[in-house]
Amino acid sequence: MDELKPCTANSSPLTPLGFLERAATVYGDCPSIIYNNLIYTWSQTHRRCLQLASSLSSIGITRGHVAHFAIPFTGAILNNINTRLDARTISVLLQHSESKLVLVDYQSRNLVVEAISLFPSDIKCPPLVLIADHTDHDNDNKSSQTVDSNFCCTYESLVTKGDPNFKWIRPQNEWDPMILNYTSGTTSSPKGVVHCHRGIFVMTVDSLIDWSIPKQPVYLWTLPMFHANGWSYPWGMAAVGGTNVCLRKFDAAVIYIMIRQHGVTHMCGAPVVLNMISNLPRSEPLRNPVHILTAGAPPPAAVLFRTESLGFLVSHGYGLTETAGLVVSCAWKNKWNRLPATERARMKSRQGVRTVCFTEIDVIDSESGLSVSHDGASLGEIVFRGGSMMLGYLKDPNGTRKCMKDDGWFYTGDVGVIHADGYLEIKDRSKDVIISGGENLSSVEVESVLYTNPAVNEAAVVARPDEFWGETPCAFLSLKAELEKKPTEKEIIEYCRARLPRYMVPKTVVFKEELPKTSTGKIKKFELREMAKAMGKSKVSRM
Amino acid sequence: MDELKPCTANSSPLTPLGFLERAATVYGDCPSIIYNNLIYTWSQTHRRCLQLASSLSSIGITRGHVAHFAIPFTGAILNNINTRLDARTISVLLQHSESKLVLVDYQSRNLVVEAISLFPSDIKCPPLVLIADHTDHDNDNKSSQTVDSNFCCTYESLVTKGDPNFKWIRPQNEWDPMILNYTSGTTSSPKGVVHCHRGIFVMTVDSLIDWSIPKQPVYLWTLPMFHANGWSYPWGMAAVGGTNVCLRKFDAAVIYIMIRQHGVTHMCGAPVVLNMISNLPRSEPLRNPVHILTAGAPPPAAVLFRTESLGFLVSHGYGLTETAGLVVSCAWKNKWNRLPATERARMKSRQGVRTVCFTEIDVIDSESGLSVSHDGASLGEIVFRGGSMMLGYLKDPNGTRKCMKDDGWFYTGDVGVIHADGYLEIKDRSKDVIISGGENLSSVEVESVLYTNPAVNEAAVVARPDEFWGETPCAFLSLKAELEKKPTEKEIIEYCRARLPRYMVPKTVVFKEELPKTSTGKIKKFELREMAKAMGKSKVSRM
Repeated sequence: MDELKPCTANSSPLTPLGFLERAATVYGDCPSIIYNNLIYTWSQTHRRCLQLASSLSSIGITRGHVAHFAIPFTGAILNNINTRLDARTISVLLQHSESKLVLVDYQSRNLVVEAISLFPSDIKCPPLVLIADHTDHDNDNKSSQTVDSNFCCTYESLVTKGDPNFKWIRPQNEWDPMILNYTSGTTSSPKGVVHCHRGIFVMTVDSLIDWSIPKQPVYLWTLPMFHANGWSYPWGMAAVGGTNVCLRKFDAAVIYIMIRQHGVTHMCGAPVVLNMISNLPRSEPLRNPVHILTAGAPPPAAVLFRTESLGFLVSHGYGLTETAGLVVSCAWKNKWNRLPATERARMKSRQGVRTVCFTEIDVIDSESGLSVSHDGASLGEIVFRGGSMMLGYLKDPNGTRKCMKDDGWFYTGDVGVIHADGYLEIKDRSKDVIISGGENLSSVEVESVLYTNPAVNEAAVVARPDEFWGETPCAFLSLKAELEKKPTEKEIIEYCRARLPRYMVPKTVVFKEELPKTSTGKIKKFELREMAKAMGKSKVSRM
Repeated sequence: MDELKPCTANSSPLTPLGFLERAATVYGDCPSIIYNNLIYTWSQTHRRCLQLASSLSSIGITRGHVAHFAIPFTGAILNNINTRLDARTISVLLQHSESKLVLVDYQSRNLVVEAISLFPSDIKCPPLVLIADHTDHDNDNKSSQTVDSNFCCTYESLVTKGDPNFKWIRPQNEWDPMILNYTSGTTSSPKGVVHCHRGIFVMTVDSLIDWSIPKQPVYLWTLPMFHANGWSYPWGMAAVGGTNVCLRKFDAAVIYIMIRQHGVTHMCGAPVVLNMISNLPRSEPLRNPVHILTAGAPPPAAVLFRTESLGFLVSHGYGLTETAGLVVSCAWKNKWNRLPATERARMKSRQGVRTVCFTEIDVIDSESGLSVSHDGASLGEIVFRGGSMMLGYLKDPNGTRKCMKDDGWFYTGDVGVIHADGYLEIKDRSKDVIISGGENLSSVEVESVLYTNPAVNEAAVVARPDEFWGETPCAFLSLKAELEKKPTEKEIIEYCRARLPRYMVPKTVVFKEELPKTSTGKIKKFELREMAKAMGKSKVSRM
């Protein structure tokens, strides 16, 4: 057997880029993108991507440079930048990534122009390309959509003048970088996650199988594409010839209109999205069920329950920018349908098992370095190994080495347990664990109880320093609008006391109009932690 | 970017073997295998595979040796041998593969014992393990199911004494061989196709996506698992927690009973299977639609049409043992549903486009070496490149080199065209092309016309030498049972003349009770070709 080695016919690099060409052949007449009154078919999208790639190639964007299909078609690397970041951060990211060209949506033009102005004089600024949008009737400020000296040209002009017969550049090696994603950083400064063609290929096929995506779904983009590349669905939709329904901003009422108008079958979003759509007053049940995939934080059972009762079929998973999408999912068992609703929601709020194509997940005790027992109680750090793990962090060998260790595991920094049935449940980010009287306490568990209170809109629990206990739980809450009577701190504490072990009950409750969030909608716990610290040490008597 | 290299966390070898462990966690209580009155669940199957792997390991079967999960779990290579081969061929295969252990179904015991007796005295015979079957009531010959001196033990004893906590052996490298398949060889002597873990992984996920397999399908095994490993569905069913319904022999009436009894949702089979199930007298339409995937030969339009009218949803694809399953499939377009039935069937009888995970297919003109025009008429050899291509042929570097050429393509030996819409259609095996008056003529096209004749059960067209034309088409036919009036040779020729260009009309028609077939059900054209040659040269006047 030893003489049998990989050769060109069997070792062509795995890449998701070929999905588009195939979509143009199979689904050529079918809608690929719907945005306001603009509709493209898969042949048009294929053609436009080749044209754009051709133009980019002709202006020097090529293998080894940094810009979902057209950009990697040139051999270059795509870096989606979060549009909700501030100019200073964007400037830092553009410099760190050594961006060679920036495609700028007209709504972000001032932001990006400002970011460029913050470049030090000795660093060459990348040319800017303006993406005008003549379908955006709400924001039809003509002058903001025209090219000025800050921009070298428009996106459409690049498409128009490009060659539709451009031969796209296949990766020389499947380990060639394809994607750069800066993490939003709930806990620390942004890091540049680099993924290769093989990793994105594995993630994309894995996501299609795990969610059992049929052919030609109608997919509503409620998850931003800059958020871990929309969990790989830009490529996944090309693989199955789906329709991408696009939105400018997230609004629960608009979501329901889109679902009806376009027959949406699938959408993704963080639990905050589920919370918003299920909290919309006077929302009727859906005519047809819509599959919604959620991840990013453990969804509170109450939110899951409300969303499902409206006719959404909720799937729940877990992944990181570093895994290119979801690599753990709460694979549903039919027998759980017989459980009472709250118990069903509790099962679904667990993260679950590794996806089909991922290799291994485990939870490791930080002291012994051994796998924790499968008892649903022993806490440890969640570790990963599999085909969609990132290559590493850009220009950060120490950061890479700290999480991708010599023992062959990627350390997530998340703390979890494994239940007796083999399902993983996240208990907290390592940094969010509260240690009260030497006891590790999961802020997420306290939050999920707070979410069952009908008055609570959002809840976040962090550690507040305590003279006696070291730390005690401090709850930050925003309440629902239109409440007849708002609960008091005491009532919230009593509510928790009836439902939690004493040491887990918040000792402090702070009401806020809105909780501070990152640009991807995650609650900024580090900011709340600072606030809790600033309150000074609590003095809770022995419990 | 250059410092970012694969490491253990992201480069763990791709393999389908992990699917089983996950199936045991997610689908533990659900049926994995149903055979007569025997039902196993996915936890039982997982446990039994580990036990068997443990026992095999303990008797020295290990990495580098040649026995779908348990055997590769030991690091060894699985070689499924076709049970319809003769003893001499099996003996040759066992020697060529240097088999270390043979698992023998009791119905094949005499066959394998004879094969072993044909080993030369200087070659060590592999030990035999007997697979008894106490559920096979039709063949309850006790003595044939008991161990005698030819066998070292029974399969069940290996399972029973094995350790269910055995740690299965992951491949060191995804290019490590996992599977050996001898091709049935319609045209030449059997060749040992070797597939690696990566190739089988890619094929398995590709097959799940291409056929849009949902979770927990009920899969009826009408395709033998020794036939290119059942197109990868033994692993695919573990990935989605499906139920494998097993059969001892193929019988159309039994198929219908199984479909009703177990709620079968999916099955695979060569066109001969479609022909058999659609020809069963008094067959009623199905209560629920059953997805059936066919490949192996272009299905005649008439057979497709009959099968679909019974309630089967037919998908059609194309692959070779060398590709580990189907890598081309006739991806269906909704707009084709509006076509007349015969036209629909004609579209479906085309092989189609590459599957999602495969890299490239093309049709190359043998003289110029260039891609043929997409005109549905220009014939060329079909070539492949992609992740599920075999490593090569065992101990046959010349054979490997002849099909996996330096230009990076695998040459299939099949002749086809590409239509204007990008869909591939096979016209023939290179060897089956008939050259009449210098014109290349597809035997398959003539056959598909013959199949539309209501009296025809099976048809095969081969070249008969001709004094003037070089070759002319010669048709071998078997007719349907229960015909009131059998057609004559002249009537068949007239039937074709009304439907085909003159040069394609068979000049000779031979009626046979049954056409000779290979062990996998393909018609043995080389045998028919010999018969046609033996008839002597035809003397057809100038047409």
